[in-house]
Amino acid sequence: MDLGLTGRSAILMASSRGLGRACAHSVAREGVSVVINGRTADDVHEAARDIASAHGVVVQTVVGDATESDVQDELLEACPEPDIVLLNGGGPPLAALADIEPEQWQDAAQRLMISPLVFVQRVVPGMRERRFGRIVAITSAMVKAPNPALGLSAGPRLGMTAVLKALSTEVVMDNVTINQLLPERIDTERQQYMARMIMEQRGISWEEARAAQASMIKAQRLGRPEEFGDAFAFLCSSQAGYISGQNLQLDGGSYAGVF
Amino acid sequence: MDLGLTGRSAILMASSRGLGRACAHSVAREGVSVVINGRTADDVHEAARDIASAHGVVVQTVVGDATESDVQDELLEACPEPDIVLLNGGGPPLAALADIEPEQWQDAAQRLMISPLVFVQRVVPGMRERRFGRIVAITSAMVKAPNPALGLSAGPRLGMTAVLKALSTEVVMDNVTINQLLPERIDTERQQYMARMIMEQRGISWEEARAAQASMIKAQRLGRPEEFGDAFAFLCSSQAGYISGQNLQLDGGSYAGVF
Amino acid sequence: MDLGLTGRSAILMASSRGLGRACAHSVAREGVSVVINGRTADDVHEAARDIASAHGVVVQTVVGDATESDVQDELLEACPEPDIVLLNGGGPPLAALADIEPEQWQDAAQRLMISPLVFVQRVVPGMRERRFGRIVAITSAMVKAPNPALGLSAGPRLGMTAVLKALSTEVVMDNVTINQLLPERIDTERQQYMARMIMEQRGISWEEARAAQASMIKAQRLGRPEEFGDAFAFLCSSQAGYISGQNLQLDGGSYAGVF
Amino acid sequence: MDLGLTGRSAILMASSRGLGRACAHSVAREGVSVVINGRTADDVHEAARDIASAHGVVVQTVVGDATESDVQDELLEACPEPDIVLLNGGGPPLAALADIEPEQWQDAAQRLMISPLVFVQRVVPGMRERRFGRIVAITSAMVKAPNPALGLSAGPRLGMTAVLKALSTEVVMDNVTINQLLPERIDTERQQYMARMIMEQRGISWEEARAAQASMIKAQRLGRPEEFGDAFAFLCSSQAGYISGQNLQLDGGSYAGVF
Repeated sequence: MDLGLTGRSAILMASSRGLGRACAHSVAREGVSVVINGRTADDVHEAARDIASAHGVVVQTVVGDATESDVQDELLEACPEPDIVLLNGGGPPLAALADIEPEQWQDAAQRLMISPLVFVQRVVPGMRERRFGRIVAITSAMVKAPNPALGLSAGPRLGMTAVLKALSTEVVMDNVTINQLLPERIDTERQQYMARMIMEQRGISWEEARAAQASMIKAQRLGRPEEFGDAFAFLCSSQAGYISGQNLQLDGGSYAGVF
Repeated sequence: MDLGLTGRSAILMASSRGLGRACAHSVAREGVSVVINGRTADDVHEAARDIASAHGVVVQTVVGDATESDVQDELLEACPEPDIVLLNGGGPPLAALADIEPEQWQDAAQRLMISPLVFVQRVVPGMRERRFGRIVAITSAMVKAPNPALGLSAGPRLGMTAVLKALSTEVVMDNVTINQLLPERIDTERQQYMARMIMEQRGISWEEARAAQASMIKAQRLGRPEEFGDAFAFLCSSQAGYISGQNLQLDGGSYAGVF
Repeated sequence: MDLGLTGRSAILMASSRGLGRACAHSVAREGVSVVINGRTADDVHEAARDIASAHGVVVQTVVGDATESDVQDELLEACPEPDIVLLNGGGPPLAALADIEPEQWQDAAQRLMISPLVFVQRVVPGMRERRFGRIVAITSAMVKAPNPALGLSAGPRLGMTAVLKALSTEVVMDNVTINQLLPERIDTERQQYMARMIMEQRGISWEEARAAQASMIKAQRLGRPEEFGDAFAFLCSSQAGYISGQNLQLDGGSYAGVF
Repeated sequence: MDLGLTGRSAILMASSRGLGRACAHSVAREGVSVVINGRTADDVHEAARDIASAHGVVVQTVVGDATESDVQDELLEACPEPDIVLLNGGGPPLAALADIEPEQWQDAAQRLMISPLVFVQRVVPGMRERRFGRIVAITSAMVKAPNPALGLSAGPRLGMTAVLKALSTEVVMDNVTINQLLPERIDTERQQYMARMIMEQRGISWEEARAAQASMIKAQRLGRPEEFGDAFAFLCSSQAGYISGQNLQLDGGSYAGVF
């Protein structure tokens, strides 16, 4: 299926590893030139080389935390007229709701809600003018069903979702769409890290820890990063311009609610 | 993007025209052999010739109302082991809720809820055994926000959605996914028919009637059938196996709710 | 809190036992004359005596299955101008989705969706004319999160919910509200019956079976029927006229979704 | 209906006027001693006198902005063991999403999400220990359907809702419930202020402006503050302990979504 993306450009936050990198691969494969970003220079450059050699597109790099204002400046210097933006970033640590300090709430609100919204404010006018924009935020299965141990990220992320929904209704008339992808247990390094934690905590084998993870998903398996990347590519496609304001769950069919 | 569908087979209800036909085109283009169905023989055969010549895949035809048991038999005779099933069918007429007769409720329940569920019951066991299945139902934007004039279809369609959701959690472990597509104002013959009605009712021109339709959508335009077809193709793809139980709205960003 | 219901009248389907009876008690206590209904004459008459003696209101009885047309006639003969209607009725048996026969679907659609809607069609015009109406349907926690073993009731019940939602937007201007109550594990005879089944199946004691039930609820207890009845009474109150189209869950805080 | 609240105590944020004051009246009528709060001393003292004389309960006052830490200290000094907490506060000004400055996002996040959550963290442990707690937040119809002009409040408010949902599942086992009330066009001074703005903007009369407001609501009228207060009182009642994590809309039946 031709996604009509050849020659487009994308800024992909936190794309040197994991879900973000899978998204970068999927759109680069479709002919999109990409800006790869991450906090660790080595990771960023390795990812950039990998993507460039695999897909033969222009790949730029910006090292730094994309929730910070000056890194956002650099992303826009590298690609002043992005057609595609991936909003992505690491979540805060697990924390019992009772123990969260005001500073942690403020930090989470800044990083997971305010900072991406400020970046969206900067790119939307140009996208509208150029009559093409695809903004996709990676949130979490949890925004629909918040987990007490993850309240610190669920709150700001759902807050961001509400603002993006409101904004989406205004900008879709100019072929600018805003959607969210809600992953649950996609098999990135993070899941592998969590599997090792389960091994230690329960004194079980790697295989048992992995099976325990798979059993939490209705599909009885973890998701594959490339499945996630291709869903991203589809939402970015030229033929997805009538799809906006959606929360697409990639959760192996696990969410219990009808909507 | 390679959807991994070459050599797959699909039964597509009500696919001789409109949304169903667009879905047929999109998967046939990806190498899927299709069973085209519709109530009018001429339409069915014309659509079949069109699709076969455009995409070079095997195209079979079954003429008849796919909500009827014997037509469902014929569909399964033509394609006993479908990989893909599109649940689709015309809605009931507009009716004020106060005026609907018990027989109309029964008929709508039969056609929009029970009949598709019975067909799903028939195809699911084989899909599970073969470890591949993609079931997609076309419902309506209205299942999330029911319109009083369309209660006769909103009720049974949301009822079907609930049962499909329940079923989806059981079968996704065998790589059988069940999703819904929720169209609003995709530019098929039906929208053109409605535009002509608006012309007459309001005494306005074709262009004005079309503009009136577009203005009801946040995107300020109607959707294109091929956009709809490609969303269907994506949900049928091999890489969409981790996406199930979803209600994807193709509504030009019009739905007001966060979820 | 004065609910402003003195002198009002109510038709309460399936109110001789369980949740329906609790609803009858709560509104009778507020001065509402009630029509008690159930399929077993002894139960109906015993409930009627109990309610009349407890609250000193007029209590009428109609024996029969309120999903049947002639029983609906009798309900309206007993109370031709009801201010309050409780839509309630037993659910269909548990059934694996794969095994459900077309006739079972039809029967469930008739009893859980069509029959209550037909009754609503009959009472709404008078309620609108009299500028007061409170229609409450007892559905289930499951309409928001359908369980595979209960698809036979989840489907039709959610279908009914969609139609009632559509209708509610039309009639609220005349002070007619339509809401749903979604119970989960309220401690009626049904839960006690299920506890006995658990005892037998697992070979555990009554106390263990009850504890097992409580542990499925976030509140770590079953709900009390009178809690349910009072929520019903509140939704029927004169001061609840601005609340319509709502699905209020009485589930001990168990539902995981934000909405 | 006896709400079982005699002798209970409540901290009611922003209760000197509008919705908060209506809530104070409704629970004071049920025998709850209340702490009245607001930013203007005269308003607070006038409200306190009014409520004390109407209901004969103990009324305390705390003047100040309840989103500020030291005012929260004072509220807890006045009532160290509250049974009931109303989370309430004025929304931020209308603002086009494109124009919102980072500082405005931070301020809105602090006042509408973080500050109430911090207060909840402080009161919940005692409520759990005492086995009774009723926390109710006034949010807005908008959290389910965000309006572009109100993104600045919709985002943080929905963020808070997500965290409260997560928390609610942990604390309901100790008879501590957390729910939200979602008002739309309840007839407080704010609506009257908005009516005057409409008069000026459109050059229409007061009656026309009021009719314009009513026409935006399916009930064709504004809500009454006392209807809102009584819904609050019901959610605080002893018999509402099985209701938690709910978003109850008081919107005259206006929300279009099924859920």
